[in-house]
Amino acid sequence: MAMADPLLDDRFSIDSFHRDAFRLVQPARNGHRAGIDAMLLAAALPDEFCGTVADLGAGAGAAGFAVAARCRQASVVLVEQEAEMAKCARLSIDLPHNAQLRPRLSVIEADVTLTGGQRTAAGLASDAFDAVVMNPPFNKASDRATPDALKRAAHVMPDDLFERWIRTAAAIARPGGVLALIARPASLAPILAALDRRFGGAQVLPVHPDAGRAAIRIVLRAQKGSRAGLSLMPPLILHEEDGRISRRADALTNGRATLFAG
Amino acid sequence: MAMADPLLDDRFSIDSFHRDAFRLVQPARNGHRAGIDAMLLAAALPDEFCGTVADLGAGAGAAGFAVAARCRQASVVLVEQEAEMAKCARLSIDLPHNAQLRPRLSVIEADVTLTGGQRTAAGLASDAFDAVVMNPPFNKASDRATPDALKRAAHVMPDDLFERWIRTAAAIARPGGVLALIARPASLAPILAALDRRFGGAQVLPVHPDAGRAAIRIVLRAQKGSRAGLSLMPPLILHEEDGRISRRADALTNGRATLFAG
Repeated sequence: MAMADPLLDDRFSIDSFHRDAFRLVQPARNGHRAGIDAMLLAAALPDEFCGTVADLGAGAGAAGFAVAARCRQASVVLVEQEAEMAKCARLSIDLPHNAQLRPRLSVIEADVTLTGGQRTAAGLASDAFDAVVMNPPFNKASDRATPDALKRAAHVMPDDLFERWIRTAAAIARPGGVLALIARPASLAPILAALDRRFGGAQVLPVHPDAGRAAIRIVLRAQKGSRAGLSLMPPLILHEEDGRISRRADALTNGRATLFAG
Repeated sequence: MAMADPLLDDRFSIDSFHRDAFRLVQPARNGHRAGIDAMLLAAALPDEFCGTVADLGAGAGAAGFAVAARCRQASVVLVEQEAEMAKCARLSIDLPHNAQLRPRLSVIEADVTLTGGQRTAAGLASDAFDAVVMNPPFNKASDRATPDALKRAAHVMPDDLFERWIRTAAAIARPGGVLALIARPASLAPILAALDRRFGGAQVLPVHPDAGRAAIRIVLRAQKGSRAGLSLMPPLILHEEDGRISRRADALTNGRATLFAG
């Protein structure tokens, strides 16, 4: 649901999420608009989650807002490098409709891949967050890429994107803290390589468009410092045979369910 | 179905597979007896597969026999290091019941992890096989291990088991040849690391005991030299809600279906 707001010009729209539990200011005309990915990422944290969350590459804040709206004891820091998206996030926090969430949301305009003193100076302290969530920008390049599948696979993102993002997540998460991410299945190898010796007990949950087709996304949850092995969870199926969104997908994208038990 | 054979002493049994399409001589009393894992691994190759197959760590030959029984244009080399298991494989080939498969089956008693000239001298030529299948011995250690989950995860197998096995697979598969393996989900990270720059286009198919529980196995198929990305396929569910084996699992384990399209 997109709405007009007299305070915003037509470069922006206001969109409603979680059956209007919160609204987001988003660019009206580019490819950064939030959707199901951000909602599924947010669903990786349990209802009873309590503590601080860093949403890395937050965009307009969709995943972070979705966590704050469902987890009433969560405080969320939205970390976004692009000035226009960080502005959207700040405008979203200021919307009167979001007044109840406002005390638990903030924005840091910074590059996720900063390291050491630069990262700390930007406001991302070490061992500080109870959870880190991330939806790395895997679609931005592919949206504009050649349709040639091999070229696209090679050029979607720099090879070390997950290494850099997960390195930051490991630095800022507290010991025992949670990492949650959503990505394409094709990124599983670099993701698992980047988790090594940082996060363990990974739970990988495949997201299939329907019961008969390969997964289009994975949602992964892991714990900093854990030595437990990887698990492959029962998948999420987005659509029923008749093409309608599945009951579970609808509940998940509207903040009425969580992806993982516990 | 276990049968007695006057030619074999009671250290061995003869077991029937694929609704008696073939029989295997197996040790009667240890943990190496073949079962559903070998049948699912064999189901990774298409019916119309045509060419040579190396079954690495073949044991008594269950997976290789299952490929030969279903794929009528496949020739299978069973590679097994343990003398007793290689003997079982040879006895299996000699069983009168298996006479029709005999011309397409052979045994090499060798260590899968041999390299260079030693590997070639053992009969495993480079770039020679149209397919390599493997069911690495991930259960052997764990069967005897402490019940402590962390200790078990650390001690089930040497860290480089998949690196060494997949290195051999990459050496002996022809360009464009197929690798198929079955393993535990917890081994996904070392498997994907070992595939890197050797095999691509990996299709990972999770095997769940029932629809509600985490996967207990993955079956993976990949192609030597491919640059295509990883896919997560719709899972195989072994048991229905009422506890009975699913129709698909029954067909797969009896050589009446294949795991992957094409």
